[in-house]
Amino acid sequence: MDRSKQIDDFVAAHLDGYAQEIAELCAIPSISARGEAGAADMRACAALVGTILERHGFAAQIYETPGFPVVVGRAAGKSPRTLLFYNHYDVQPVDPLHLWTSPPFEPDVRDGALYARGAKDDKGEFIARLAAVDAARAANGGELPCGALFVVEGQEEVGSPHIAAFVREHLDELACDGALWEEGGTDAEGRPGMVLGRRGVLSVELAAETLSRDAHSGAAHMLPNAAWRLVRALASLKDGDEHIRIPGWYADAKGPSAEDEAIIEAMNDPEPGLREQFGVKNFVGGRTGRDLEAAVFNPTANIGGITAGYQGPGMKTVIPARATAKLDFRLVPDQDPEDLLEKLKAHLIAEGFGDLGVTWLGAMWPYKASPDNPFVGLTRRTAEEVYQKPYEFRPMAGGSSPVYAFARPLGNIPVVSAGVGNDRNRTHAPDEHVRLADLLNAGRHIGRILEGFGALEA
Amino acid sequence: MDRSKQIDDFVAAHLDGYAQEIAELCAIPSISARGEAGAADMRACAALVGTILERHGFAAQIYETPGFPVVVGRAAGKSPRTLLFYNHYDVQPVDPLHLWTSPPFEPDVRDGALYARGAKDDKGEFIARLAAVDAARAANGGELPCGALFVVEGQEEVGSPHIAAFVREHLDELACDGALWEEGGTDAEGRPGMVLGRRGVLSVELAAETLSRDAHSGAAHMLPNAAWRLVRALASLKDGDEHIRIPGWYADAKGPSAEDEAIIEAMNDPEPGLREQFGVKNFVGGRTGRDLEAAVFNPTANIGGITAGYQGPGMKTVIPARATAKLDFRLVPDQDPEDLLEKLKAHLIAEGFGDLGVTWLGAMWPYKASPDNPFVGLTRRTAEEVYQKPYEFRPMAGGSSPVYAFARPLGNIPVVSAGVGNDRNRTHAPDEHVRLADLLNAGRHIGRILEGFGALEA
Repeated sequence: MDRSKQIDDFVAAHLDGYAQEIAELCAIPSISARGEAGAADMRACAALVGTILERHGFAAQIYETPGFPVVVGRAAGKSPRTLLFYNHYDVQPVDPLHLWTSPPFEPDVRDGALYARGAKDDKGEFIARLAAVDAARAANGGELPCGALFVVEGQEEVGSPHIAAFVREHLDELACDGALWEEGGTDAEGRPGMVLGRRGVLSVELAAETLSRDAHSGAAHMLPNAAWRLVRALASLKDGDEHIRIPGWYADAKGPSAEDEAIIEAMNDPEPGLREQFGVKNFVGGRTGRDLEAAVFNPTANIGGITAGYQGPGMKTVIPARATAKLDFRLVPDQDPEDLLEKLKAHLIAEGFGDLGVTWLGAMWPYKASPDNPFVGLTRRTAEEVYQKPYEFRPMAGGSSPVYAFARPLGNIPVVSAGVGNDRNRTHAPDEHVRLADLLNAGRHIGRILEGFGALEA
Repeated sequence: MDRSKQIDDFVAAHLDGYAQEIAELCAIPSISARGEAGAADMRACAALVGTILERHGFAAQIYETPGFPVVVGRAAGKSPRTLLFYNHYDVQPVDPLHLWTSPPFEPDVRDGALYARGAKDDKGEFIARLAAVDAARAANGGELPCGALFVVEGQEEVGSPHIAAFVREHLDELACDGALWEEGGTDAEGRPGMVLGRRGVLSVELAAETLSRDAHSGAAHMLPNAAWRLVRALASLKDGDEHIRIPGWYADAKGPSAEDEAIIEAMNDPEPGLREQFGVKNFVGGRTGRDLEAAVFNPTANIGGITAGYQGPGMKTVIPARATAKLDFRLVPDQDPEDLLEKLKAHLIAEGFGDLGVTWLGAMWPYKASPDNPFVGLTRRTAEEVYQKPYEFRPMAGGSSPVYAFARPLGNIPVVSAGVGNDRNRTHAPDEHVRLADLLNAGRHIGRILEGFGALEA
């Protein structure tokens, strides 16, 4: 019997047990957004993750961080190559509670799915991977075909504030040859696929301060207005064609490869959906159709918020002493947020806005895998085998992710996606659920990835 | 005995009685900002104003408005000419209460002053005028030298929302030949003076809406950002030299007259005080010294507030669907806010921002008296006689006032200032007070104005 069949049979035979383990994890309300108020639940959940890892043959260790613990599980395999699994045990808040059919932390199986907060994101994904590990081990005489390394953190839902430092501080322990990111699966039509890249982001606050306190607007012919100063500084950042005017901003920006362009050309037109979802009249830069998708390779300069002066009903005739704006710049490979922060500051000085405060609020680096990477190819090939539908790449997502925090420092390893998702899981919303059929397929798919990973060329 | 001497003696002899009437009014907490919650106190205070006017020989009438009542008092005089007195019976809130030495609505005389909320603004001013009326009548054999007409409103401290309509609806009853505005007096050094004009104002809200709901900033390469749209529209309003770019904005704007320029040339340099009070590094347009004062003849475009997107701590990566700004444009004679609103709208359309919403939040027209006006001259001459110091004009205040609501519809009547103020009355603040010496001088001064007003050339 071939090992793929053995993997499939193993996961199918033990599916109820895996669902039970998801439920066991989902009974703990590990809401990281509660902060210290939820620390006891967070620690109980981290401990259970360790227990479950050990139950599946891993040596587990719980690492303290400035926030909630990171759980690391390690198991050796036939191949010296190691596959890293990134997951998280924290979940989103559950409001509005009255929209849940069954209580969010009382897991309920109905209609072929397990309902609970975290059932999909990310406790279901975590257990699907353990199912794959068990199945691959069973198909290989009790030995894993390659090394497996779990990193399960507790603050993904609040922006992973400590994961990059954690990786930097444990480079030797986390050495690996590739990683499977937290989730994956199929689209609403059951087609498997993967996003090959994530943009980076540089987040800053700009602050203008022109007076020691607000003044009456009757003095506007004399006293400088911080809101005007901020508006003018912001207006200097982009021209009317959405081109960022900061010198050198595009120096390291790579456009799409020929493969990326071919992929985009074959994608669905996103325009009708966006028009309906967001009531858009005019898209950025007047773009339409698939050009909207291709534009993901354009760096952006987004104003996330502006605050200045009086914002209530009616009017208050005031000269604001202080005005601030939140900006996030999305970055494409190989833009570096630390380099771009300096370029932003130099631009403001050159344009006469050197008095504005620039505060670094955070950054992520861009990450992109090539569709030609062997690990990407393995993931695609095995998915088509399991899901029996053609695989779909998306060259780049518009958002950002801490993928970079692993990929870069661990030696530019390739990072792929695979998992239990089906785009209708109500992730982050009431009635979050994972379908048992998707749990089965994710185990089958990831089991095949484990099977093939050891033999890949480095 | 000359009539000025008789006026002086009369006010001095009855000063305690006038202080008692101020106290009588100040015992009522007529805080207009309380709205309907304070309606009983407001109506009690309006009734008392009517009673006091009748006590001083006026026919009083209480008019309902959509807000609180307006009290009108009328007394005939020897001359057919009539002087209108504008006052208000409402007061500011009293917070912070713990900073009051005596309770704000328990009037207390100490150190030669009466302490209470409203003691100066505007109940003390109102009674000082009645003292002047009594004194002028006493000096003229029981008959007023000219007609006197009081208009005492109840919503000055909340922006006089109904006074312009009230005047328009009662033009015949309010016919007069000049007006004394709500307050006046001396500066901190005891020098009498008057501001000859007030700028107008046009207040609007600009609103940009680009999406039906906020979106994730990962889509910033596709979905239009309302904050960016607002920033660009705002940036189109003024150039870097503070010149308003809206076509026709300056068409009706009059600069200072030769007299105004001469007055400004003789004024104190406002720069050191402004630097200290507001911590200014660079004034608008790089101006310094008396140029700051002269700049009051420049129309302004002030941003009073901007609100868009996320404004809390840290970062939220959002594309704001909606962004708004409050703008107030200060206007100089003879700019017309209704005309300028149309010019603003036309500019936005011409610059490609026709999709922005423009909401009229309110307006006042500019008003300016000439230093050569005979009524202005009378006010100055009598003030120098009473205060024994040279009189100081200021050509124009930067702020706005509902003076225009009387001056224009009543036939471009001249409007002057005179009163009990001394620039240290803690108006709007804890321990508001009026000095009895200032009450005496205001009575003497305004009595002389009444004495001379009937004989002025029209």
